[in-house]
Amino acid sequence: MQRDVFASLSPLDHRYYASEPDLFEQLNSYLSENAYVGYQLRVEAALTRAWARHGFCSSSVADEVSRAVASITPAQVYTEEETTRHSIRAMVNCIRRQVSRVARPFVHLGATSSDIMDTARAMQYRDVTDQVIIPQLKELLCVLIQITRREADTLQVGRTHGQHAVPMTFGFAMAEYISRLGNRTITLEKATASLCGKMSGAVGAYNAVSLFLAEPENFEREVLADLGLRPATHSTQITEPEYVLDWAHGLISTLGVLANLGDDIRHLQRSEIAEVGEVFAEEQVGSSTMPHKRNPWNFEHVKSIWKAFCPRMLTLYMDQISEHQRDLTNSASQRFVPEIVVALVATTKRLTRVMRKLVVDRRRMMDNLDLSKEMMVAEPLYVLLAALGHPDAHEVVRQLTLTAERTGRPLRVVAAESPELAPYLGQMEQHHLYLLEHPETYVGIAAKKARNVADHWERVLQLQIGADA
Amino acid sequence: MQRDVFASLSPLDHRYYASEPDLFEQLNSYLSENAYVGYQLRVEAALTRAWARHGFCSSSVADEVSRAVASITPAQVYTEEETTRHSIRAMVNCIRRQVSRVARPFVHLGATSSDIMDTARAMQYRDVTDQVIIPQLKELLCVLIQITRREADTLQVGRTHGQHAVPMTFGFAMAEYISRLGNRTITLEKATASLCGKMSGAVGAYNAVSLFLAEPENFEREVLADLGLRPATHSTQITEPEYVLDWAHGLISTLGVLANLGDDIRHLQRSEIAEVGEVFAEEQVGSSTMPHKRNPWNFEHVKSIWKAFCPRMLTLYMDQISEHQRDLTNSASQRFVPEIVVALVATTKRLTRVMRKLVVDRRRMMDNLDLSKEMMVAEPLYVLLAALGHPDAHEVVRQLTLTAERTGRPLRVVAAESPELAPYLGQMEQHHLYLLEHPETYVGIAAKKARNVADHWERVLQLQIGADA
Amino acid sequence: MQRDVFASLSPLDHRYYASEPDLFEQLNSYLSENAYVGYQLRVEAALTRAWARHGFCSSSVADEVSRAVASITPAQVYTEEETTRHSIRAMVNCIRRQVSRVARPFVHLGATSSDIMDTARAMQYRDVTDQVIIPQLKELLCVLIQITRREADTLQVGRTHGQHAVPMTFGFAMAEYISRLGNRTITLEKATASLCGKMSGAVGAYNAVSLFLAEPENFEREVLADLGLRPATHSTQITEPEYVLDWAHGLISTLGVLANLGDDIRHLQRSEIAEVGEVFAEEQVGSSTMPHKRNPWNFEHVKSIWKAFCPRMLTLYMDQISEHQRDLTNSASQRFVPEIVVALVATTKRLTRVMRKLVVDRRRMMDNLDLSKEMMVAEPLYVLLAALGHPDAHEVVRQLTLTAERTGRPLRVVAAESPELAPYLGQMEQHHLYLLEHPETYVGIAAKKARNVADHWERVLQLQIGADA
Amino acid sequence: MQRDVFASLSPLDHRYYASEPDLFEQLNSYLSENAYVGYQLRVEAALTRAWARHGFCSSSVADEVSRAVASITPAQVYTEEETTRHSIRAMVNCIRRQVSRVARPFVHLGATSSDIMDTARAMQYRDVTDQVIIPQLKELLCVLIQITRREADTLQVGRTHGQHAVPMTFGFAMAEYISRLGNRTITLEKATASLCGKMSGAVGAYNAVSLFLAEPENFEREVLADLGLRPATHSTQITEPEYVLDWAHGLISTLGVLANLGDDIRHLQRSEIAEVGEVFAEEQVGSSTMPHKRNPWNFEHVKSIWKAFCPRMLTLYMDQISEHQRDLTNSASQRFVPEIVVALVATTKRLTRVMRKLVVDRRRMMDNLDLSKEMMVAEPLYVLLAALGHPDAHEVVRQLTLTAERTGRPLRVVAAESPELAPYLGQMEQHHLYLLEHPETYVGIAAKKARNVADHWERVLQLQIGADA
Repeated sequence: MQRDVFASLSPLDHRYYASEPDLFEQLNSYLSENAYVGYQLRVEAALTRAWARHGFCSSSVADEVSRAVASITPAQVYTEEETTRHSIRAMVNCIRRQVSRVARPFVHLGATSSDIMDTARAMQYRDVTDQVIIPQLKELLCVLIQITRREADTLQVGRTHGQHAVPMTFGFAMAEYISRLGNRTITLEKATASLCGKMSGAVGAYNAVSLFLAEPENFEREVLADLGLRPATHSTQITEPEYVLDWAHGLISTLGVLANLGDDIRHLQRSEIAEVGEVFAEEQVGSSTMPHKRNPWNFEHVKSIWKAFCPRMLTLYMDQISEHQRDLTNSASQRFVPEIVVALVATTKRLTRVMRKLVVDRRRMMDNLDLSKEMMVAEPLYVLLAALGHPDAHEVVRQLTLTAERTGRPLRVVAAESPELAPYLGQMEQHHLYLLEHPETYVGIAAKKARNVADHWERVLQLQIGADA
Repeated sequence: MQRDVFASLSPLDHRYYASEPDLFEQLNSYLSENAYVGYQLRVEAALTRAWARHGFCSSSVADEVSRAVASITPAQVYTEEETTRHSIRAMVNCIRRQVSRVARPFVHLGATSSDIMDTARAMQYRDVTDQVIIPQLKELLCVLIQITRREADTLQVGRTHGQHAVPMTFGFAMAEYISRLGNRTITLEKATASLCGKMSGAVGAYNAVSLFLAEPENFEREVLADLGLRPATHSTQITEPEYVLDWAHGLISTLGVLANLGDDIRHLQRSEIAEVGEVFAEEQVGSSTMPHKRNPWNFEHVKSIWKAFCPRMLTLYMDQISEHQRDLTNSASQRFVPEIVVALVATTKRLTRVMRKLVVDRRRMMDNLDLSKEMMVAEPLYVLLAALGHPDAHEVVRQLTLTAERTGRPLRVVAAESPELAPYLGQMEQHHLYLLEHPETYVGIAAKKARNVADHWERVLQLQIGADA
Repeated sequence: MQRDVFASLSPLDHRYYASEPDLFEQLNSYLSENAYVGYQLRVEAALTRAWARHGFCSSSVADEVSRAVASITPAQVYTEEETTRHSIRAMVNCIRRQVSRVARPFVHLGATSSDIMDTARAMQYRDVTDQVIIPQLKELLCVLIQITRREADTLQVGRTHGQHAVPMTFGFAMAEYISRLGNRTITLEKATASLCGKMSGAVGAYNAVSLFLAEPENFEREVLADLGLRPATHSTQITEPEYVLDWAHGLISTLGVLANLGDDIRHLQRSEIAEVGEVFAEEQVGSSTMPHKRNPWNFEHVKSIWKAFCPRMLTLYMDQISEHQRDLTNSASQRFVPEIVVALVATTKRLTRVMRKLVVDRRRMMDNLDLSKEMMVAEPLYVLLAALGHPDAHEVVRQLTLTAERTGRPLRVVAAESPELAPYLGQMEQHHLYLLEHPETYVGIAAKKARNVADHWERVLQLQIGADA
Repeated sequence: MQRDVFASLSPLDHRYYASEPDLFEQLNSYLSENAYVGYQLRVEAALTRAWARHGFCSSSVADEVSRAVASITPAQVYTEEETTRHSIRAMVNCIRRQVSRVARPFVHLGATSSDIMDTARAMQYRDVTDQVIIPQLKELLCVLIQITRREADTLQVGRTHGQHAVPMTFGFAMAEYISRLGNRTITLEKATASLCGKMSGAVGAYNAVSLFLAEPENFEREVLADLGLRPATHSTQITEPEYVLDWAHGLISTLGVLANLGDDIRHLQRSEIAEVGEVFAEEQVGSSTMPHKRNPWNFEHVKSIWKAFCPRMLTLYMDQISEHQRDLTNSASQRFVPEIVVALVATTKRLTRVMRKLVVDRRRMMDNLDLSKEMMVAEPLYVLLAALGHPDAHEVVRQLTLTAERTGRPLRVVAAESPELAPYLGQMEQHHLYLLEHPETYVGIAAKKARNVADHWERVLQLQIGADA
């Protein structure tokens, strides 16, 4: 069944697909309905292979089924479903038609639909995480590490509450995202490794398989091992929902970090701040009516995708509740989970692309820092006075800042004129006095920390960082 | 650009599309990317017509543009966007190429992209609500009214906390949904009628149009009137987000009522209750492994769709926040809003279909009522005793229920034997004594209320209810 | 039962209470457990009065009950509840103890707990909306109108995407919030006026009351009218959840507008923008370590409260689903709804206070506008060229902006030198040429619109605006 | 500042506090404002101790500060905050007043407010998890294990879609919750162990501390080690939000499992199912108007609390986003996080109490199983036929179930009469034929699995399970 892409309803299937067809084709190969049916077929084949291993059918029967599943298309299954109104029974019927009379009974033998579907989902999620999400996150991490190292010493004002706070470096600011994304990557890897399949039958008590086997849990373990998975300690008709839930938490919380990065960068592009910029193509239009505009639309897009997908986490929390040995109210809702992966991957890729070409205006960063560096003397001045034993250093400096503000004179000058402070300033070490004169050097260990964070995560995640930046 | 339907990522674009192609084609004609671009083109044409009416260009220029927009395909726009990286500029370029040199300047003149996009969205949402959502809701309401009238006198036990409470009728139970859906329909109609467009330019101050016109608000009003819309009292680059928000609240809260209906019906299908049933086709399969199963999967589906879409309301609340005269962080997120419509319409249609064929087992309803009707005497007994002046009626009856429970004898018998109650029972009116003997008649005005609710909403919503049920 | 305020768990009950005790005392008088029990008692009294009016008991019985309810404390009810484990039965017992033996039966006669509780909730929500929320919103609107009028002509650069777009005025920017909050006020008033009570008994079929009265709906109407309420078209054990839901949507969507206002103002306070400021008290500390900081903490607080409360809307959507004639799963969850009111009122009050003292730096607004006003010529230049018939005005101006950017020369100068544009510039009207020379006058009808919006909402909401600002 | 408990706004501070004062006193000692301030004071003391260890002040100064913090009350801090409008500066002033002039400078030296607050929060969350949440969860697990073992062989029908599926045992059903809660306990323990503090200053670059120390990261590590914490790999003004986020995910996902358990049990209490029951006290009232009612209100309460708190997870996801080195928009919102702990603990405790007294009606379980056991033969019959080589076993059995349904005769009888099946039935093993005659024995390994799950988690979590159940 072919259809015009732009006749689709989901922006993932029209606009975002059209904007990045290669990436979406890759994602579709793991997450589309075609892919899902394909994974289900692989589970059916593994099941028959296990029966063969246990001698219930011949290995040629298992081979027949393995060959059959490779030839079946989702379209066939959907046509059959029009009759059965049951997707897995439809699939089973399709397989059975492709195999000999002797093989037919060993298709789906002992399984319930959820054994097939939940196991297939675990495989999909594992594969797309391992093959697409993690590599894409690592690519972004490499870019961030390159920026961090390149800009480790680039002075920038630290901002809290949108206000100038104290100096630091742009590399230090970027190191935040290495650390947070590094942590998320590990969280996601662990959650993915925990994903479980099942082959425990209609209510999880192995009713059917135990007709033949004394240790049906071993049988389950074998089928799943064939597919690279393992079972949970318990299942009902379905696997415990928390495995997918934790993995989805990994996805959504990673998206949250990306949204924060996007927000930071778009604010740094504000006309009045202008410390960084997106490269614009020569023919690119910023606004349909304001030909001069250069909007941070890629970073805005990241935030927007986060707003669209973050609330979907609630659906997964709701799907924790399934009555008794399961109700079906998680069926349609879980079908939308793959879209979260798409959102995360597309966003990561977009950020990788635009961060790689991020223009950093070091001059402008310095200019902005200059705007308030004289006021920033307040913190080290207060700390140094305190360390020298001034009993009310914070308050006395706070008063001086009000004076400095009122008179428009540098704080350090106002401070130098204060008779009360004279004895303390007199005792101050040379490099501390230098720092008060050159507040832009009051950067703590920003540069070193930035490099350390980059080194740490490069090692922990075994990243391959290219020479170019 | 054609693509296999099953290669799509969104279940709306593969599974649900495939299961109901006619409905989805209808929805696509309002909500797909093709449809959206089509609406945007209509806004552009209306804008040029307004310039012509004001004498800035000839009416033949306006005609040229109106003809051009009819011929442009989204695919062309997307191709152009590869160069401009700006969707509206791309569209404008496409129009301009189709018109004469003299007409070109009057394409998009004075408009900002959001003027076009927000106005197009309002039209889409208005049209799909008026043409699809409301009619579909009314069709469901007609089915519910038919059931309500047919079952107005069908005795059923009222259930609170999942426990038998007091008797009522199944028609009365269904009347709840007439009333709630009736209310939602009105809420939705009002919110839809309030949807606004805009033509106030880049920051909402009519900067561009006021270059030529002293009353740019009138110009805006004219353009929008041409499209059947009106402006809000204020806009920035975008329309105030609350218009779409209120409309989405109408959608999501309607879906919530449907989910409650779905939940009620699926619980009434529990094996132990079994008061209603979905008709199963002869060839339909209930379970891949349990050939005997008949699952309430349609009603489960309704609940599941609600779980998938209800949390998306949060995205709309988040999109209330847009910095200054707008940031773009609502752009991608708003692109997913049409999916909520799809969820609501498909769910309404599904419920209409299965409710129309709902099998009501009146015998079973009576049997279930019989299970506890003797205990239900407690409420009228206590109320009648109180009305006759017994000072502790509730407590005395509560004690009697414990005795009845312990002894396994009917509450009315235990009560009749109580010396303390004798004087009160002696004063009791005949029809009240009858009711204590026949607790199934203790139904209040359930039947009448059910019919009144049906009549009320038939009249208020001017429904056309067929004779069949 | 007394307790140290700071031993409370909820920040509403410790930190925010302590910071604004008067406001919180007022809110507590509508929304605390004391208040809720008080409202429930009033419903009980109205119920007995109705029985008296219908001749089932004497008016002195009704008076007795009315007097009794005035004397009962929640603490008494809670003590009784330790025995009954049922809050309403406990309350009924407390009333019954305060009245004569003859009056006792007419306490709670014919009612189910939810009749009392849902009706009491509707009264609470109506009263706190009418008496506190709406007046507080109107006070904020008055402050916004004062600012809007005062700053109607104050030039400010319009910002989209955080980028300078075209000029407008600060009054126009503030008018956005008059319009949006005005709209929310009306939405909230309508939703509040729709709140319903009920007196329809255990499953909504009036089982108990219809033992005595042929028209129990009239009886319900009378009881509710006594309390200033009306019934819905249908109820089960509970009122239809959509009435409270719509009202809560009014609350949350209003909070969303406040959050947007908070965000706008805090960004305008960024060190690099600095167009507005919060007044700081002489002794106020901005940072524990940076004595010079002045943080926009009140506006940050608004955003933060929104983040804490906006997601709670989901709870209300979930509470739409109640099985059959009700399950109790909405009981605890609805107890947290009053907290949303507290969040909204406290936020509105805070914004009223800080907006009233907002410092507007007109000089700085002008300076910021100056930064890019030369580039802003692009929009009117392109529009004017187009209106004069230039077939590619947008593209030609876009190219010129690149040149201007590259060369650092003003766009109008670059344009004036373009041979291609000469014929068009030659035809341009005098006031248009003036505008290109003075781009800060390219403000559309910003000032007029700002005043119109202020006037419109002052009239519609009948606001009393003081002379001071 | 004392206040009537029922004058509080939050149900946590009035209704739920009053219903379980001991538990709430315990929680308040970790989570109230008193507790929070107490933790902050401990951080300040640790900071001064570290300066003393490094020789910047004497150990007697550190002792002075340690003594001072023990004497300060939150009320004092709040009074001081009325002047400073800054909570941490207020606290610092309070400490400074309690110490000698020489000690004053070493209070808060080098720290920013967030160093104190974030570290205090991590301590609170760690302590309440270790001391209250985990022990309470383990207590519930012990009860569940006792039930599981006691009911491991209790036959119960497995239910999927609310429909009878195949037999299992009630112990197996309960084992699901051992496994899921066991998993959650581990998740929560890991997330708690990962909670981080910080002492890295205003923007995270150790600006202040590095004035004196070359390795300020070591200094941070020492301060935190003193409090039993460790730092993260990076921090800004605040700790990376993902540590608290992951922990909150642990809380909310645990609450979801409890909600599922609550839902299961309340459905098993439905009048028509009635397999389990809550013990009711002799004087307990079920309904204010229906004296006979026994509602599953505790289990409904669990679901309701989940609905109230689950959406709050969204607040934590939103709080991942903090501009640059932090904005303050996470401040108020994070103050509500402790409430989630309260909800989880109170719910766990309630479930522990009611599950411990859960009445299991084994007779009724058997009766319900009997209702459809004849139909349940379908699954083993189909599986056995297939294993014997019948090529269309599922379809042929599905047809037989329709016949059985139509004729009202047992499926096995209908099957036995089928000539087509005769050859297969003839080959069937004796124990399989027995099972078809006694479908209630078709329970798979339900009992064994139940016991294994109980054993596994008892061992993994090192639970101490009492002899009583």
